[in-house]
Amino acid sequence: MTEGASKKKAATLLISCPDSKGLVAQVTGFIQRHGGNVLGLEQHVDSRDGVFFMRIEWDLDGFGVPTERLNEEFGAELGTPLQMDWRLHFSDEVPRMALFVSKQSHCLYDILARCQSGEWNVELPLIVSNHPNLEPVARNLGIDYHCIPIDRSNKREQEQKQIELLREKNIDFIVLARYMQIVSGEFIDEFPDRIINIHHSFLPAFPGARPYHSAHDRGVKIIGATSHYVTADLDAGPIIEQDVVHVSHSDSVRDLVRKGRDLEKVVLSRAIWLHLNRKLLVWRNRTVVFA
Amino acid sequence: MTEGASKKKAATLLISCPDSKGLVAQVTGFIQRHGGNVLGLEQHVDSRDGVFFMRIEWDLDGFGVPTERLNEEFGAELGTPLQMDWRLHFSDEVPRMALFVSKQSHCLYDILARCQSGEWNVELPLIVSNHPNLEPVARNLGIDYHCIPIDRSNKREQEQKQIELLREKNIDFIVLARYMQIVSGEFIDEFPDRIINIHHSFLPAFPGARPYHSAHDRGVKIIGATSHYVTADLDAGPIIEQDVVHVSHSDSVRDLVRKGRDLEKVVLSRAIWLHLNRKLLVWRNRTVVFA
Amino acid sequence: MTEGASKKKAATLLISCPDSKGLVAQVTGFIQRHGGNVLGLEQHVDSRDGVFFMRIEWDLDGFGVPTERLNEEFGAELGTPLQMDWRLHFSDEVPRMALFVSKQSHCLYDILARCQSGEWNVELPLIVSNHPNLEPVARNLGIDYHCIPIDRSNKREQEQKQIELLREKNIDFIVLARYMQIVSGEFIDEFPDRIINIHHSFLPAFPGARPYHSAHDRGVKIIGATSHYVTADLDAGPIIEQDVVHVSHSDSVRDLVRKGRDLEKVVLSRAIWLHLNRKLLVWRNRTVVFA
Amino acid sequence: MTEGASKKKAATLLISCPDSKGLVAQVTGFIQRHGGNVLGLEQHVDSRDGVFFMRIEWDLDGFGVPTERLNEEFGAELGTPLQMDWRLHFSDEVPRMALFVSKQSHCLYDILARCQSGEWNVELPLIVSNHPNLEPVARNLGIDYHCIPIDRSNKREQEQKQIELLREKNIDFIVLARYMQIVSGEFIDEFPDRIINIHHSFLPAFPGARPYHSAHDRGVKIIGATSHYVTADLDAGPIIEQDVVHVSHSDSVRDLVRKGRDLEKVVLSRAIWLHLNRKLLVWRNRTVVFA
Repeated sequence: MTEGASKKKAATLLISCPDSKGLVAQVTGFIQRHGGNVLGLEQHVDSRDGVFFMRIEWDLDGFGVPTERLNEEFGAELGTPLQMDWRLHFSDEVPRMALFVSKQSHCLYDILARCQSGEWNVELPLIVSNHPNLEPVARNLGIDYHCIPIDRSNKREQEQKQIELLREKNIDFIVLARYMQIVSGEFIDEFPDRIINIHHSFLPAFPGARPYHSAHDRGVKIIGATSHYVTADLDAGPIIEQDVVHVSHSDSVRDLVRKGRDLEKVVLSRAIWLHLNRKLLVWRNRTVVFA
Repeated sequence: MTEGASKKKAATLLISCPDSKGLVAQVTGFIQRHGGNVLGLEQHVDSRDGVFFMRIEWDLDGFGVPTERLNEEFGAELGTPLQMDWRLHFSDEVPRMALFVSKQSHCLYDILARCQSGEWNVELPLIVSNHPNLEPVARNLGIDYHCIPIDRSNKREQEQKQIELLREKNIDFIVLARYMQIVSGEFIDEFPDRIINIHHSFLPAFPGARPYHSAHDRGVKIIGATSHYVTADLDAGPIIEQDVVHVSHSDSVRDLVRKGRDLEKVVLSRAIWLHLNRKLLVWRNRTVVFA
Repeated sequence: MTEGASKKKAATLLISCPDSKGLVAQVTGFIQRHGGNVLGLEQHVDSRDGVFFMRIEWDLDGFGVPTERLNEEFGAELGTPLQMDWRLHFSDEVPRMALFVSKQSHCLYDILARCQSGEWNVELPLIVSNHPNLEPVARNLGIDYHCIPIDRSNKREQEQKQIELLREKNIDFIVLARYMQIVSGEFIDEFPDRIINIHHSFLPAFPGARPYHSAHDRGVKIIGATSHYVTADLDAGPIIEQDVVHVSHSDSVRDLVRKGRDLEKVVLSRAIWLHLNRKLLVWRNRTVVFA
Repeated sequence: MTEGASKKKAATLLISCPDSKGLVAQVTGFIQRHGGNVLGLEQHVDSRDGVFFMRIEWDLDGFGVPTERLNEEFGAELGTPLQMDWRLHFSDEVPRMALFVSKQSHCLYDILARCQSGEWNVELPLIVSNHPNLEPVARNLGIDYHCIPIDRSNKREQEQKQIELLREKNIDFIVLARYMQIVSGEFIDEFPDRIINIHHSFLPAFPGARPYHSAHDRGVKIIGATSHYVTADLDAGPIIEQDVVHVSHSDSVRDLVRKGRDLEKVVLSRAIWLHLNRKLLVWRNRTVVFA
């Protein structure tokens, strides 16, 4: 992305479609024809599945198609004839994020700091938790905190409450910031590719609960964290971002937890940044990351 | 460190002295003789300068020398005869930290989150700044924030005010969390090896101001951050911790700043953790880090 | 690069030119018009200098312009009118590399292994050295080894001999694999952006001789290696690739040398791979790496 | 390790035993009493299992116990009374290594280069393979290469042949340098904690065959390599060393293989270096690495 990109109004198209000759030429031709200036372009071909992916961002200053008609126009000229899936975003839209937390605060603090300082271009109108513990943190900053305790007996109704809240607040995407609860398939279906989780291991190693204990038992020399979109398969959704840190025999489980916290924070925040900046496409169970 | 170390009262000795035969045997013998149980031991010999370094931590439960006489007793038995420099710490002492900030908030937020959540065992009674901008952040958490603007004409008096405040609050060590001011030699002399700075480059590359601009101009493929103790030589004090992140031609200066922020936060916080946990020794212009 | 790219005959264009609207559309349009199938495309705009960079690779199967006329045709249609600097490569050309070595063998062995095993698509007809030490290694593999000792008095003539050899063998590019000699400006002018060096530090930290000693003295916690194109400014040419490894107070200079060797090998070999695969563009003193 | 350590004759003790008070004092006291000068000392307590580990290295110059009686003497004074498992090594012993390879050459070349250049203090009298492919590489360097093809029907006899060869050549430890064969429990029992394998994934993720294909399918953003001691449980032995490299959606399986090769080489060679330098202890299924 060039530096100017965030200052003027820009459009971003995320495209996936069956691969064929000349796709880049056709999309860039569309933009050129209407007088747009390309600010960034990435493309990728999955040659195994024969799928084409593209992200293109252009300056709308002097662009010949009005923003309100752009989606329709692109669809008519290219999207529909070329069997594209596409998403169109404008740089002046501010995404609305909800946070789901439990008792641990490190990811929450990290995200709040980025929102407060203006590092991210995002609205955060809602924090949901199954515990009251972190309410004071949210209150301090004037953010709505809803404690919705969940157990086996009430999961269905409580998730329904959550969904209503999310709709009411016009939430675009959800971040499970160490939420420590398995969300149901029904819930996930409401927000496909729009729920981001952080798992405290280098997936697919150590899925499920207590990964730091498992890592310690196995005697690994590296621990990791993984941010992924949530799917019905626990800890098996499309991976957005991963990172690792070296550890040694002298690290107790407590040390792994301490080192892992810093990893979880940064990996989750990088994933959110990628989502916010429209740099992610999902294909089957994998992501294309145009970072 | 074993997991039990933080639960019971423990003592930590940090020793440096001229190298000679049998030093480990003598120090561990002292502890064994008085009934102490060693929880952790690291040693290092700088063979060029002939200097011996040691960190030893032991459980005080059942230890034969009362804590209030331990320093004197160790000095008489070993410290003085073996020409040691040593520092004795007890696990129930809580260090008192002051933060110096300017306008950027990312390191401040990261440190506050660790203090608030109980991740660190530290008191934070004082934040000093040359700008009022971050006062609301401090106020929210009930921490004293003193805005002491500094320019060329008033530097001497204003630093004197800072020193008085630091004494009044019994501050043990100072963290320059992106303070963006050069502190004077007189100030530094008051807190030798007790002022921790974060520099936003991989020192010794790009000392001084605007290191991200310099890094961009030079076309490096990796940027870094460096935490060090402050000495009279600007950006040349003993390095505590460094880390890096890969960048590319597609990263603008603004992208380097963004990626660098996450690096600065974590590198500074790791350095503070090492200092808080008495894992650092300084010898000439280098550190021995018993992590 | 898609997997098929290396199997069929493909063309790669590396372009830089003044930025303007529609460049991607025009280049991809050229390829589409002649029936080419794009295998990979990357572009970058240096918004400060207003320069556009592009790498595009396409399948020549069924392409309407014969390879022997492609350069001319592209120049006439786009290259000249748009003031482009461009280089055209075909996947069936095998670049010819010369190695310059001194006494240390680790980079040499690493490169030879990659050539021998077929990992790289390259010819290696010539090794030059200022010392006879590594001649047996070359002889074993049937590669010409020329020992051309250089001292202050004979530098000019000896470099002239080297240049003649390089021409005679039709060498495309030169790798200084720990050559430990400063090459003259005259020599460099013969091979602009075609001499790759490996420097054993994280440049711009520790340029010049004995960087591991300097790193040890400074007490850094990370050491690095840097591969760059050679320019008349010592250790200041465009950086191709860098990497680092963590070290500690317990690492002697000898340990830094040992850890650094593994870094030098891999960083140099990655840079050679990028050069071989036409993934590098140089602009002023920086590289654009389309990896 | 101090720099002098490798120049003079030194002894290294690797100890594990039930934890109790005063163990460091007793071991260092033993060395001091006999006039030894400690060159390096590391210790670790596994507080969960109550086990103490120690590595201590000392200069034998002027040491009061002759080397041929040292093992016995240490056993009588400390080893037996304190229920220690211990191993005693002298710096002038040169370990004898056998390599097992299959068709891929990258690890073999890397190891040979280190042996040839004198980087490692090791004898390499024997290379074993189930394929003839790499015989020329071994022959060139005058190393015995035995091709012992293995299939289901002959595994028992062929492994017996291997064992005889290994005994005949007085082999101390075996390195499976991408051997691509599962060795039997009987074979492993002959060389407990003395067979080092390299697995081409970040274990425990992707054990078994074709880990790069599995990594690509799962869409991970990081791939790894793991070196471990071989046990009867496939890919589940004590981990010695691991490292990783970042990858992206644009990396095909072929790219993962290419990037992974460099990782495999360096991770395996680091593990061998640790083994050669007596820096490894095994406890249950984990290693203590005194690096």
